[in-house]
Amino acid sequence: MQRKSFNEMQCPIARSLERVGEWWSILILRDAFYGMTRFDEFQQSLGIAPNVLSRRLADLVGRGLFERRRYSTKPLRHEYVLTAQGRDFWPVLLALMAWGNRHFAPEGLSMFLADEGTGRAAEPVLVDQHTGEPIARERHAIHAGPAANERMRARIGFRSTRNAARPTSIPPVSPSPEFVS
Amino acid sequence: MQRKSFNEMQCPIARSLERVGEWWSILILRDAFYGMTRFDEFQQSLGIAPNVLSRRLADLVGRGLFERRRYSTKPLRHEYVLTAQGRDFWPVLLALMAWGNRHFAPEGLSMFLADEGTGRAAEPVLVDQHTGEPIARERHAIHAGPAANERMRARIGFRSTRNAARPTSIPPVSPSPEFVS
Repeated sequence: MQRKSFNEMQCPIARSLERVGEWWSILILRDAFYGMTRFDEFQQSLGIAPNVLSRRLADLVGRGLFERRRYSTKPLRHEYVLTAQGRDFWPVLLALMAWGNRHFAPEGLSMFLADEGTGRAAEPVLVDQHTGEPIARERHAIHAGPAANERMRARIGFRSTRNAARPTSIPPVSPSPEFVS
Repeated sequence: MQRKSFNEMQCPIARSLERVGEWWSILILRDAFYGMTRFDEFQQSLGIAPNVLSRRLADLVGRGLFERRRYSTKPLRHEYVLTAQGRDFWPVLLALMAWGNRHFAPEGLSMFLADEGTGRAAEPVLVDQHTGEPIARERHAIHAGPAANERMRARIGFRSTRNAARPTSIPPVSPSPEFVS
């Protein structure tokens, strides 16, 4: 089944997902950050069918996340090297890792980020570069940018217009503070 | 076509992807952070078929990212509220937003994060909570955790064992510093 294209969507999250293309692509990007660049290396790490890997790599090159480079002439061989766009995907992988480590690692950590300077485990958290404050939903919120279309503005303004429009027969059992405007 | 299950994989990134389940699910989570909780609200925002949305929501409840709560008895109606696990997905969405804003917003920003205290745009960056240092590939690296299996250790140790094993006929045209050990 073909996934619907998010191309026409304006949201940068949807566009990022569109650009990554597919779940396998995220794991290929992950392995590139481990230093893998060659077809056989990706295949051995991922254990996927060669034709699937070929398609995903060609796709990632076409989308500008990898550059294809020749590393041997006899036999002719190419490797796949992250572009600047691809390298900028690292924080997404770290955010996925942190979420997985927090919730889906019942047997303990299988991987973690470490500070090579101090030799200690690092705890990646998002902060605002301007203020140094941790990004928190109590303090930070999404706003519409200058290029936002109507659909985007409606989505971003949803919370502020919701309560007037919502008929509620009974209150929620235990309202979450995030959902009380 | 059924996507291969990442269930048996140990990597927390793969497990996170497995838990999210599908691209649409990420956009449903996104809309939940805008304050949406009801079927009609998600449907209007996403413009997807009701049967697809039903499946995705049931799946997200089953995976523990949403809780289904009754909000009306006549007619009987339920809403979908983020669980603690679901709320912890926010940094992943922000990382995707930052990547999309940086690379795939040629017409300008359609959305951005702002600090409600100062009223200024926030720049979400990853730092190490222990040291306050920005997470950078020059300073931070992934290590195997105590629970890592053989496959995970091989992947994480790839860079250090690669060069000996790799026959290279010609050097890369312009080696990227990230890929020189």
